[in-house]
Amino acid sequence: MLSEFDLIAHYFTRPPRHADRVPLGVGDDCALLAPAAGMQLAISSDMLVEGRHFFPEADPRLLGHKCLAVNLSDLAAMGARPLAFTLALALPEASSEWLAPFSEGMLALADAHGCELIGGDTTKGPLNICITVFGEVAPGAALRRDAAVAGDEIWVSGSLGDARLALAGYRHEIPLDDATLGEAATRMHAPVPRVALGLALGGIAHAAIDVSDGLAGDLGHILERSKVGAVLNVDALPAGSMLRKQPQELRRRFALAGGDDYELCFTAPRARHEQVLAAGAAAGVAVTCIGRVDAQPGLRLEDTSGAPVSLQLSSFDHFASP
Amino acid sequence: MLSEFDLIAHYFTRPPRHADRVPLGVGDDCALLAPAAGMQLAISSDMLVEGRHFFPEADPRLLGHKCLAVNLSDLAAMGARPLAFTLALALPEASSEWLAPFSEGMLALADAHGCELIGGDTTKGPLNICITVFGEVAPGAALRRDAAVAGDEIWVSGSLGDARLALAGYRHEIPLDDATLGEAATRMHAPVPRVALGLALGGIAHAAIDVSDGLAGDLGHILERSKVGAVLNVDALPAGSMLRKQPQELRRRFALAGGDDYELCFTAPRARHEQVLAAGAAAGVAVTCIGRVDAQPGLRLEDTSGAPVSLQLSSFDHFASP
Repeated sequence: MLSEFDLIAHYFTRPPRHADRVPLGVGDDCALLAPAAGMQLAISSDMLVEGRHFFPEADPRLLGHKCLAVNLSDLAAMGARPLAFTLALALPEASSEWLAPFSEGMLALADAHGCELIGGDTTKGPLNICITVFGEVAPGAALRRDAAVAGDEIWVSGSLGDARLALAGYRHEIPLDDATLGEAATRMHAPVPRVALGLALGGIAHAAIDVSDGLAGDLGHILERSKVGAVLNVDALPAGSMLRKQPQELRRRFALAGGDDYELCFTAPRARHEQVLAAGAAAGVAVTCIGRVDAQPGLRLEDTSGAPVSLQLSSFDHFASP
Repeated sequence: MLSEFDLIAHYFTRPPRHADRVPLGVGDDCALLAPAAGMQLAISSDMLVEGRHFFPEADPRLLGHKCLAVNLSDLAAMGARPLAFTLALALPEASSEWLAPFSEGMLALADAHGCELIGGDTTKGPLNICITVFGEVAPGAALRRDAAVAGDEIWVSGSLGDARLALAGYRHEIPLDDATLGEAATRMHAPVPRVALGLALGGIAHAAIDVSDGLAGDLGHILERSKVGAVLNVDALPAGSMLRKQPQELRRRFALAGGDDYELCFTAPRARHEQVLAAGAAAGVAVTCIGRVDAQPGLRLEDTSGAPVSLQLSSFDHFASP
């Protein structure tokens, strides 16, 4: 059995790679972070609990990736550039079989984004992974939830609902063949944070949020904060490649309220339509216009013909859901 | 049952009190923090787990205080000024009876230090409280573990071992009358982070650490990082007011390796002896010179006569300890 200090040293301590912005990394009472002159820090924390956010038998390498990915997704939704993160970890036991792939999965994604592990904590306890991530953004440039304006177009990156489809397969809510489940599960286990897109949208988009609890609910936060309403074209929603083969009603429900998508939903002036498409192309991710912001409160659903669509949706709530 | 969003809104969302340094607080994908020009950020995370760091029946108001206090103690040990923190919380259920006093205890301490709650996460799960705290410190001014120099005096703030005495009482390792246990338990449940002292030691002390896992072990981290050794006078250790009444051997063991003290252990040049005393007086906390740094590796214990003292000590380790 490794001691706590051996554990940290072995799997999570590396020489700082960006000594200019991380003058002091893992191993002191605090880490020291030096943001570039005049920049603000964007900060987000996410806590992932076994049995709630991931299965007990989750592949530790994918889990390491996902835990950091969901945090980077929050930075992406602010248009912030990743700098660093802390990792606090409660573990039932310190096992190398789990820690080696977990740290590799996490640090590979961290390296891909130049995001440095600068500190944290480890303790014994029911498996719980808490990451706090730091990015930088110029004053006034952050993509806030309260910045949508009536007349804006509403966009979403990538595709929606495949993670929810995989969950439905695991739960036997619907029958899925192994190939479909396997493909859909990739979206659940290995989300790709849209960091480059968030950065490319600076100065173009008004408001943004990352779609973690379901598009309708997350867009609802933008509408509420911005004191506006919206109309979505449910036929325009970019369903995931596996969800696309499912019946219409399921497709719409999972695309609108699936959860675990980690795409960006954002609004931008109509006049910037071409710039948004160019930002998506530059970031290497599809962007789809799915509706428009207006002054009438609430979120209304339409099909392509303009006919109203009624769907029973519920956004994910950690305490209210079963 | 409160929903997750009601819960956050009700107990943890307040208008930002320092809009200059927190342009955006709770409620977006990220919070935004604007450190003063040219300052570095000191960052620390601590995760507290039920049954490991606190008893299941712990008073929620004191627990809220303690969870933030242990993080502020890390800032104190760097000589950093508290700015803000994030709170990630896994709860078995969202109960007002627990959340109201928990948030009150935490936010009262936060307000006392001008440290703003800027974001976080809540989820259902075994009780787990993870705080990440942010302070600011001028470049080069942080009190690092690797900065002790042979010839430095070694100091400790306040008193040691009463928290460990209370634990011994709770565990029935030793008999304690109710009054003694009650008094000692205050040190366990309501630690006072030495923030003002940490700030006052800037430019005076060389190295510092907060004593959370036991003085000998924590001082050991300074020695190892600084590549020096030390001699401690065990008779000089400031035992807590309840521990002082205990037999010598217990007194020494609990003062040296008790844990949960949250005092500052620091080193400073002999020439600064009077300045250290003045810093303690200014911060309103006793500071006691307990030994000296030298070039011989390891930590050696002596009594006041200079005779070597041998004690069986073990620093707290979250995975190795039972």
